[in-house]
Amino acid sequence: MLFVGDVVGGLGRRTLLGLLPELRRRHEPTFVVVNGENIAGGLGITPKLADELLAAGVDAITLGNHTYRRAEINGYLDSGKPIVRPANYLTTQPGRGSCVVERDGIRLGVVNLSGNVFLRAGRVAFLEIDTVLAELEGKVDHVLVDFHAEATSEKVAMGWYLDGRVTAVVGTHTHVPTADARVLPGGTAYISDVGMTGPRGGVIGVKKEQAIASLRTHMNVRFETSEDDPWLMGVVIRAAERPMQAEAIEQVLQPWRPAPQAAGRS
Amino acid sequence: MLFVGDVVGGLGRRTLLGLLPELRRRHEPTFVVVNGENIAGGLGITPKLADELLAAGVDAITLGNHTYRRAEINGYLDSGKPIVRPANYLTTQPGRGSCVVERDGIRLGVVNLSGNVFLRAGRVAFLEIDTVLAELEGKVDHVLVDFHAEATSEKVAMGWYLDGRVTAVVGTHTHVPTADARVLPGGTAYISDVGMTGPRGGVIGVKKEQAIASLRTHMNVRFETSEDDPWLMGVVIRAAERPMQAEAIEQVLQPWRPAPQAAGRS
Amino acid sequence: MLFVGDVVGGLGRRTLLGLLPELRRRHEPTFVVVNGENIAGGLGITPKLADELLAAGVDAITLGNHTYRRAEINGYLDSGKPIVRPANYLTTQPGRGSCVVERDGIRLGVVNLSGNVFLRAGRVAFLEIDTVLAELEGKVDHVLVDFHAEATSEKVAMGWYLDGRVTAVVGTHTHVPTADARVLPGGTAYISDVGMTGPRGGVIGVKKEQAIASLRTHMNVRFETSEDDPWLMGVVIRAAERPMQAEAIEQVLQPWRPAPQAAGRS
Amino acid sequence: MLFVGDVVGGLGRRTLLGLLPELRRRHEPTFVVVNGENIAGGLGITPKLADELLAAGVDAITLGNHTYRRAEINGYLDSGKPIVRPANYLTTQPGRGSCVVERDGIRLGVVNLSGNVFLRAGRVAFLEIDTVLAELEGKVDHVLVDFHAEATSEKVAMGWYLDGRVTAVVGTHTHVPTADARVLPGGTAYISDVGMTGPRGGVIGVKKEQAIASLRTHMNVRFETSEDDPWLMGVVIRAAERPMQAEAIEQVLQPWRPAPQAAGRS
Ligand SMILES: [Fe+2]
Ligand SMILES: [Fe+2]
Ligand SMILES: [Fe+2]
Ligand SMILES: [Fe+2]
Ligand SMILES: [Fe+2]
Ligand SMILES: [Fe+2]
Ligand SMILES: [Fe+2]
Ligand SMILES: [Fe+2]
Repeated sequence: MLFVGDVVGGLGRRTLLGLLPELRRRHEPTFVVVNGENIAGGLGITPKLADELLAAGVDAITLGNHTYRRAEINGYLDSGKPIVRPANYLTTQPGRGSCVVERDGIRLGVVNLSGNVFLRAGRVAFLEIDTVLAELEGKVDHVLVDFHAEATSEKVAMGWYLDGRVTAVVGTHTHVPTADARVLPGGTAYISDVGMTGPRGGVIGVKKEQAIASLRTHMNVRFETSEDDPWLMGVVIRAAERPMQAEAIEQVLQPWRPAPQAAGRS
Repeated sequence: MLFVGDVVGGLGRRTLLGLLPELRRRHEPTFVVVNGENIAGGLGITPKLADELLAAGVDAITLGNHTYRRAEINGYLDSGKPIVRPANYLTTQPGRGSCVVERDGIRLGVVNLSGNVFLRAGRVAFLEIDTVLAELEGKVDHVLVDFHAEATSEKVAMGWYLDGRVTAVVGTHTHVPTADARVLPGGTAYISDVGMTGPRGGVIGVKKEQAIASLRTHMNVRFETSEDDPWLMGVVIRAAERPMQAEAIEQVLQPWRPAPQAAGRS
Repeated sequence: MLFVGDVVGGLGRRTLLGLLPELRRRHEPTFVVVNGENIAGGLGITPKLADELLAAGVDAITLGNHTYRRAEINGYLDSGKPIVRPANYLTTQPGRGSCVVERDGIRLGVVNLSGNVFLRAGRVAFLEIDTVLAELEGKVDHVLVDFHAEATSEKVAMGWYLDGRVTAVVGTHTHVPTADARVLPGGTAYISDVGMTGPRGGVIGVKKEQAIASLRTHMNVRFETSEDDPWLMGVVIRAAERPMQAEAIEQVLQPWRPAPQAAGRS
Repeated sequence: MLFVGDVVGGLGRRTLLGLLPELRRRHEPTFVVVNGENIAGGLGITPKLADELLAAGVDAITLGNHTYRRAEINGYLDSGKPIVRPANYLTTQPGRGSCVVERDGIRLGVVNLSGNVFLRAGRVAFLEIDTVLAELEGKVDHVLVDFHAEATSEKVAMGWYLDGRVTAVVGTHTHVPTADARVLPGGTAYISDVGMTGPRGGVIGVKKEQAIASLRTHMNVRFETSEDDPWLMGVVIRAAERPMQAEAIEQVLQPWRPAPQAAGRS
């Protein structure tokens, strides 16, 4: 399966859609899962954009702390579509924390979790995940957990905690890919952060001049999505025959060079 | 030059000293710089341990938020030895934020900075760095900045801010290596985090069972340094002839397999 | 009933025990409830100190973020004694979040809650309180909620949220008494913070020179409990005949002048 | 002198202007200083509103973390008018941290400071204040410091740190008045927080239903300024003949009952 990190803005979306055919040819993923929390102009997601991803063959969408930036997504999250928000958010918040998608006879559980350090989540990720996995038991062959968190301590600990119990734990949120992808001893593919899909030439998505100005002046600076140097960042995980086991995890870090005519289109 | 990420505890120290000869042969670094903020049992550094690093041929030591965990280091930091703590700490705090080391006729400025997000630093990194670079002007051929910070936004922004003005900006503190090492367009080698040197089998240095227990129970758990799976993580930066320019940055992620007799020694 | 704010260290304990007889005479409280999270040298509580409070006629003890500083209290918290830790902590953490004490035929429910802003609590105070109150329904005539929280927004909001549903919401944790004690329109006595019982001559309990040095130098400073100017801070709440209704709340801010021989004793 | 706490929104402004004549008659203050960081619809201040305060006889305006919410104030802050933002903000940020106002031959220095705990301020309050006081030396007879901070530890410590060196240290920011007003042993009038001027029937200014909904649902809730139960909160400080000495500090907590016709006007 292919998991793609936080898609940022229109450039991120174009990068994803532009590179997806090639990635499908090269890696032949059964499933494609995408973190979409930044797709709507850098913050949040709309029904239209979610539909566009699903229409492009994305099997499931995960989210994070920017889930509810666009209020119009709230109803969509409860519509049964394969889109998940952190499972350890409050039960009263729109949406659900896991879903099951099926392809070629394989059932994949997709789980979204939020860290509790530096982020606001109503329940504790390390407890909620046990509940979610108990619910998925018997209904899935493999499970992919997108752990949307800031602190590396939480992320690494979650990898160890779930090692052997899920097929993959992939971190998101920092928008910077880590160099620690590996299959842990218990058979779980792990990476602390897959990075983002969008402008590598900015500061985690924002125009670099604006990010620097904010840090140097402490004044309110209007943040716009950078348009520089689009890259797709993700991981390809090869699941084993045995449930909840991975054979390999491979990092995908690839620039997107739009064809000249494409550049002017969006 | 070789920069090695946060050396954690006795295992980290043995890993560094065990692998250093081989790394010197392979990369022939003119300078070796090491972040030592976690070398004393996981937190802080002592004069004895600092001396041990310098005696082993380390040219300069950088630190971070754990600088003052061991009070006995305070005087040492003011002794003129090539050890630096974040430059944007208060001027009244022991130690200095930059130093110059010379080898083979090349003068290297080593600067330590602390992030301001989620970390306590008395002054603003993005302003202090200008002061430090002005002071170093004319006294150095190359500059290495160790930016000890949590938030990726600060780190990436610092890379862009200093691009073309220093030879390298290397991030530390998260203990997880990132996969974004590159020479930026202005000629500055950059990586968001070089990772740590020590037990990859723990949770950023701590025994994994203890880290998980803390996150699952919210109780005070005594943290001990893990002894599992020692790795050295660092980067090798090849400086250009022109000052403040890098030609290449290469990530070093290498396990350490101590010789059997060595294992029982420490 | 009399509620006394965070008792800090030995001086706080002596102040409480020294003034309690006089306060009993003056206010004739049916119940005395005390926040004891700082009684053991400024941080935490021990079984011995809890027993001493109960032996002195304290009806119930509430706690807060320092609940587990002393591991020896853990078993005590589960022993059925009238001592409560925040109800919105994890169910696996030692202790319980509410208890019922009875005197003169009146049943008082005592509830402890932790804020979620700037403090770590496994569950959301504003949801957990509904569960707790449902459990207490029919078992109590009056309820006192000690909301141990930092942010005034949470505290004031909790007062309004519970107005008419409990007899009193009293805030603790900041160690500074607020001047907003009143009976809200729905009949609930409210105060944002009752303050602390102990050395008013320090900085929320700590020797003032040490607190200032820490803030001025950013260095690790050993904190000791101040011994200057002991005060008792609390509130007297007069409950109405009708359950969950208060008639009045009156602030108690009183210095303690130990008798000369007493001063040398502890 | 009369110091009035954070004036919140239009209701806060009307409350201040409505009660000011009576307070002038009762207390005959030489100076009136007002914290105006929330006067523009709850967040920030505009030149028009600042001018309105000054026209009403306010001698100086202090601010806080919401200083720059309205960009149109930036130029005004540099115009020499008696309006100050935290002195420990960056020197590049618009405005200045202290000013001197004179009346009846008495020169009053007004200083604004921001806390460093939970708030972003480019420099350390406990160091910057020494610089500011050195600059004011010889130019003022009395000094009023508005310390805009969240943590009680910082506030109480600042009171002790400045005791005897300034006439008054008054805390703001929490919007809840504290019950610890007193003249410290060195002669400095102190209070941890003077509270706010505006709707006591909300949650520190916001409509209570909205504040509760935000805390219970974790969803984005649009915050509007409450219109319930307007109060003015402040302190009256009587300065001594000797410079930098106060004789008394008295809390002012007073509801505003607008005349019927006035109610419909704004
Ligand atoms: Fe994101
Ligand atoms: Fe995120
Ligand atoms: Fe470290
Ligand atoms: Fe660190
Ligand atoms: Fe306390
Ligand atoms: Fe507390
Ligand atoms: Fe305010
Ligand atoms: Fe404020």
